[in-house]
Amino acid sequence: MFENRERTSIESLGEFGLIDHLTKQIKLKQESTVKGIGDDAAVLDFTGKKVLVSTDMLLEGIHFDLAYTPLKHLGYKAVQVNLSDIYAMNGIATQVTVSLGISSKFPLEAVEELYQGIYLACEKYNIDLVGGDTTASRQGLVISVTALGYADEKDIVYRNTAEEGDLICVSGDLGGAYAGLQLLEREKLVYIENPNIQPDLEGKDYIIERQLKPEARKDIIELLKDIDVKPTAMIDISDGLASETLHICKQSNKGCNLYEEKIPLDPMTYETAREFNLDPTVCALSGGEDYELLFTIKQADYEKIKLQMDISIIGHVTEASAGCNLITKAGVIHALKAQGWNAFPPAP
Amino acid sequence: MFENRERTSIESLGEFGLIDHLTKQIKLKQESTVKGIGDDAAVLDFTGKKVLVSTDMLLEGIHFDLAYTPLKHLGYKAVQVNLSDIYAMNGIATQVTVSLGISSKFPLEAVEELYQGIYLACEKYNIDLVGGDTTASRQGLVISVTALGYADEKDIVYRNTAEEGDLICVSGDLGGAYAGLQLLEREKLVYIENPNIQPDLEGKDYIIERQLKPEARKDIIELLKDIDVKPTAMIDISDGLASETLHICKQSNKGCNLYEEKIPLDPMTYETAREFNLDPTVCALSGGEDYELLFTIKQADYEKIKLQMDISIIGHVTEASAGCNLITKAGVIHALKAQGWNAFPPAP
Repeated sequence: MFENRERTSIESLGEFGLIDHLTKQIKLKQESTVKGIGDDAAVLDFTGKKVLVSTDMLLEGIHFDLAYTPLKHLGYKAVQVNLSDIYAMNGIATQVTVSLGISSKFPLEAVEELYQGIYLACEKYNIDLVGGDTTASRQGLVISVTALGYADEKDIVYRNTAEEGDLICVSGDLGGAYAGLQLLEREKLVYIENPNIQPDLEGKDYIIERQLKPEARKDIIELLKDIDVKPTAMIDISDGLASETLHICKQSNKGCNLYEEKIPLDPMTYETAREFNLDPTVCALSGGEDYELLFTIKQADYEKIKLQMDISIIGHVTEASAGCNLITKAGVIHALKAQGWNAFPPAP
Repeated sequence: MFENRERTSIESLGEFGLIDHLTKQIKLKQESTVKGIGDDAAVLDFTGKKVLVSTDMLLEGIHFDLAYTPLKHLGYKAVQVNLSDIYAMNGIATQVTVSLGISSKFPLEAVEELYQGIYLACEKYNIDLVGGDTTASRQGLVISVTALGYADEKDIVYRNTAEEGDLICVSGDLGGAYAGLQLLEREKLVYIENPNIQPDLEGKDYIIERQLKPEARKDIIELLKDIDVKPTAMIDISDGLASETLHICKQSNKGCNLYEEKIPLDPMTYETAREFNLDPTVCALSGGEDYELLFTIKQADYEKIKLQMDISIIGHVTEASAGCNLITKAGVIHALKAQGWNAFPPAP
């Protein structure tokens, strides 16, 4: 990837030189950051607020394939998937720590690209990078991010507080990240067979971006605040709509009805799924990595939500004994099943 | 390692099953933990306190060798090295998040052992495990831990606040972890050559434990509070005494004199270093991984410190222009150099 470009070995800088080099541009933005990088620990001040903490690890070969993942996008995504968890608590994300394990095949320029993506995400979402760890890895790239944020106690939204009769809502559209992944995997195979063939991704920008460069839905949290709607339960969609809906229902001890026809799909997702002989609804239910927000609201908030273009009402919460169901376009009732992306797939 | 014992495949549990299995025993202990594992993010309450955050990643083949590292010890150590950073701010550690990347060669029982060590460290240091991420890894074991804690603003001790004339102190003894590593590496080579030879580690428990099962010095933080001494600067010793002393001096814009004869060495460290034709002082200066606390105090606090058996005064802070020096037992002055453990060693 870096064959024809400048290569500076990381070894020539050493660990502390590398950290200095990568972090010298940091300007702290958050009032809550008292001390960022440069001591044993960061010092933060969340006076009067509850502190939110979430962590996610991305491993090469499991969560990303460097054959088609630009490092800048990867850095950006690694931050986004963590911010998404803070927003899913109805909180404000404020800081991240980033730990990297880098194999010796990476020159400094590659690590810089990764950090450019990390910084871009921090810049755009007003996040301070306050700590981390940078080390050699024997094999494969490892990225571990921890996100911190805060919320007033009264604003925090958990997963286990959905009530019978609540409406189930989702932001944006679903299945796009999975459809984008299918395209990238296909073009990778084509490239392996014949490196002279150019990748055929024209007109597919949207779903490719959904896969490579997701955006955490901070805007939805702000919108809900603006229209004075506090969800009764919320979760972000990393494993697919089915898995996340089941989390909310199981933890709230409730059931649900989801309506297939209400699940928001982008036309490009729909077409691409069809190209791959996939059911577009299954892409939405089980594809994952959309990083949209799934939340429940009181029926009384229906009027406030119904005109929001970027929020779809896709079902409602029922009593637990009714089970968790998907009602298809043909009116057939299926039990909702989590077949989402699983880091430990069951043996075949 | 697990050949003759029960083996349960992780795949049979799936990701969420594994997390449930590993975390079902957790009982939250800290008042500041509002919500632990089970939602998008943990919720913490540090009302009136500053929040401390630190993170460290341990990678197989770089930071540990499973040929001689019991998984339980590894889990214990992964937590300790992070707690050590919180104590080095003069703070109280309260929570950790743990992300694991596990290759498919590990059965469930192996992951359980790792978690036993994590839980043991949490139990002993009164820490809540409040979040994490557990995923498959294609190659090698990855452990990423983030520790959280708190302190009153007036109690926090940074690295950059040492003053000229301050006394330089260190807890415990140094070089033991490195001496222990030499023994373990030797016995590994012996084992590779002849697996029937039993490892010869008899009588070396102390330095083996220093390497495999370090203890963060929470007790020193408590002791300093009891005797009413607030250090002027502090850091924990992960990379070796020389590197950490230079961090304090550089960030405080000061120099120092360290006295070789004052550096605390355990007799077993001394003997073992000699066995390996190593200079015991070099083991202390550059060996690293001792996780002792290095701190500076005002001269006025000398009387309070001098009778503390577990704290050694090893030098004093000078003006920056005097440089950072080691005065040998023979009275020769050497410039202090960081040759500590480096995750990115310079090319030969």
